[in-house]
Amino acid sequence: MSQFSLRYAPLNLPLRHTFTISRWSRDVAANVLVELEGDGIIGIGEASPNARYDESQESCMKWLSSFDTSTLKNPFDVETVLQAMERMGPGNYSAKVALEMALYDWIGKKLQVPLYDLWNAPSNVGPQTCFTVGIDKTENLPDRVAEAAAYPVLKIKLGTDRDKEIIKTIRSVTDKPIWIDANEGWKDLDTAKDHIRFLADQNVHMIEQPMPASMKKELAELKAYSPIITMADESFTGRESVEELAACFHGINLKLMKTGSLRRTMQLIHTGRNAGLKIMIGCMIESSLANTAAALISLWCDYADLDGHLLINEDPFKGLAFNESNNVFLPQRPGLGVIPR
Amino acid sequence: MSQFSLRYAPLNLPLRHTFTISRWSRDVAANVLVELEGDGIIGIGEASPNARYDESQESCMKWLSSFDTSTLKNPFDVETVLQAMERMGPGNYSAKVALEMALYDWIGKKLQVPLYDLWNAPSNVGPQTCFTVGIDKTENLPDRVAEAAAYPVLKIKLGTDRDKEIIKTIRSVTDKPIWIDANEGWKDLDTAKDHIRFLADQNVHMIEQPMPASMKKELAELKAYSPIITMADESFTGRESVEELAACFHGINLKLMKTGSLRRTMQLIHTGRNAGLKIMIGCMIESSLANTAAALISLWCDYADLDGHLLINEDPFKGLAFNESNNVFLPQRPGLGVIPR
Repeated sequence: MSQFSLRYAPLNLPLRHTFTISRWSRDVAANVLVELEGDGIIGIGEASPNARYDESQESCMKWLSSFDTSTLKNPFDVETVLQAMERMGPGNYSAKVALEMALYDWIGKKLQVPLYDLWNAPSNVGPQTCFTVGIDKTENLPDRVAEAAAYPVLKIKLGTDRDKEIIKTIRSVTDKPIWIDANEGWKDLDTAKDHIRFLADQNVHMIEQPMPASMKKELAELKAYSPIITMADESFTGRESVEELAACFHGINLKLMKTGSLRRTMQLIHTGRNAGLKIMIGCMIESSLANTAAALISLWCDYADLDGHLLINEDPFKGLAFNESNNVFLPQRPGLGVIPR
Repeated sequence: MSQFSLRYAPLNLPLRHTFTISRWSRDVAANVLVELEGDGIIGIGEASPNARYDESQESCMKWLSSFDTSTLKNPFDVETVLQAMERMGPGNYSAKVALEMALYDWIGKKLQVPLYDLWNAPSNVGPQTCFTVGIDKTENLPDRVAEAAAYPVLKIKLGTDRDKEIIKTIRSVTDKPIWIDANEGWKDLDTAKDHIRFLADQNVHMIEQPMPASMKKELAELKAYSPIITMADESFTGRESVEELAACFHGINLKLMKTGSLRRTMQLIHTGRNAGLKIMIGCMIESSLANTAAALISLWCDYADLDGHLLINEDPFKGLAFNESNNVFLPQRPGLGVIPR
């Protein structure tokens, strides 16, 4: 095998709307683009570093600069490459997955097969995907819902001081199925139970992270109480055990930027299912590049939340797409199948 | 890619004991060995043709002789190769899977990675495996159980006119967990329910094919009735829909010689789990070659019954092995990892 060259550059993605969840607001996603070239073939990957995990565009590129490409002696032996990355120490998961993404894209392009074929996916069509309605003033919510007219499932961010008002307002204009992301917003068990009782009659299919990740005892009690399935999001930073998560939740929202690896995510899906967990794949705010990698993983998942690329203004890439029922599907091209837009 | 050459030959495997189940007895397994050579690398596969599906050593080799190796233009594009095999018409599933097995083995050897790594298995260790105690005279059963001393889970073939006597005799010498294979032996619902009531207190973990495959209505009723999980075996000939099977059983016993494809089996596991089915991987009487391919699939299964190679006298191959708790594991070698003994 010839030598590989590794390149990386900032990928700044301006957002359509300033994006607000219960913790912060932002108007640009400061991501990183990775290119891995060998044998005249270029594999591409994307990192979406998250300050919550002490990652930034700079730290991400610094990690990439420290990666020794001679590790790619057998580029098809991804396990050995991953173990080398793991030996470089914890953290930098968005950089690690971006590099692995580029490597897998390279492998698929080199072998001239889509990765979903290489990995024996049942098809290139994944689960139905939601569209996120951000937190906004109550009077603006009907407009936000109208903007989501094309999407059959809405995801609503709660954890505000007016959660019931938000849901009532949305329910006054649509009866579409709703997924809730509470983003740790309910701070005690009584509040969480009260909200879940209210939501149980509102065609709500799941609730992500109803309470703070630190409240394990309460989350376990809430799992037993809730008629709506609860999903770990902030409680899963990427390294928790499946047993630990299954004690507190009915399911788990996996994000590549947190697990730091497509391969480890595929492995987690299997061990998670064996532990009885429902599996969801989510994303950060990222282009169609990283989001197509997430869509690849979604082929083995129960739920998908892959609208990250719809929140940016000019997506530089073309990859994942959605059918008429908003099921995500993968392009029929080698590797990830992502091309410049 | 250079041309591939395809070779095949009878692989006659003398059995340790004449093997009897409720339908037939035999003392040799007339299998077929397949070799696929390209780029100086040889991939190997094995077919175990079954008369029940109108297959024989001869028909298997005839099918292989008709396969056009120019189909392997891109040998990594297994989906295209499989579709070409499917276009050759139905049937000949053992021949088809033997060829695909050889192709995957070649791919793994060419890329220098074990197939479990190529497919992102969580590890190379699969589920605990049972050991089958064949039907024998009641007075011989304690000896048969003693022969199985090393195995923590016993599989007992029932469907005789003395099923309760067999279980009582076995329970007089061991309290190990038992899996039952009734091989369609209980012909009406009352008999099936009566046996299941008896077995429910006997540390029986599952029952394969309690009633004839044709009795779908009764099997569905039995699924609702049985406190022990029931598994489709004869009801799954390889082409039934997952929904059809889930209506009648809690789980499904997959066999490569019936599905005709490792890849389609991997896909079935995923769609089966989504339909709520437990997944078991079984085998025919075959050497460590085909049985290592089954062991590879077992890494994604709940149950494994992979003792086919232990029933033959001189296994020509070395591949799958078992740890101290009888969990199957795969050799850490490229491809299937199977070598001559």
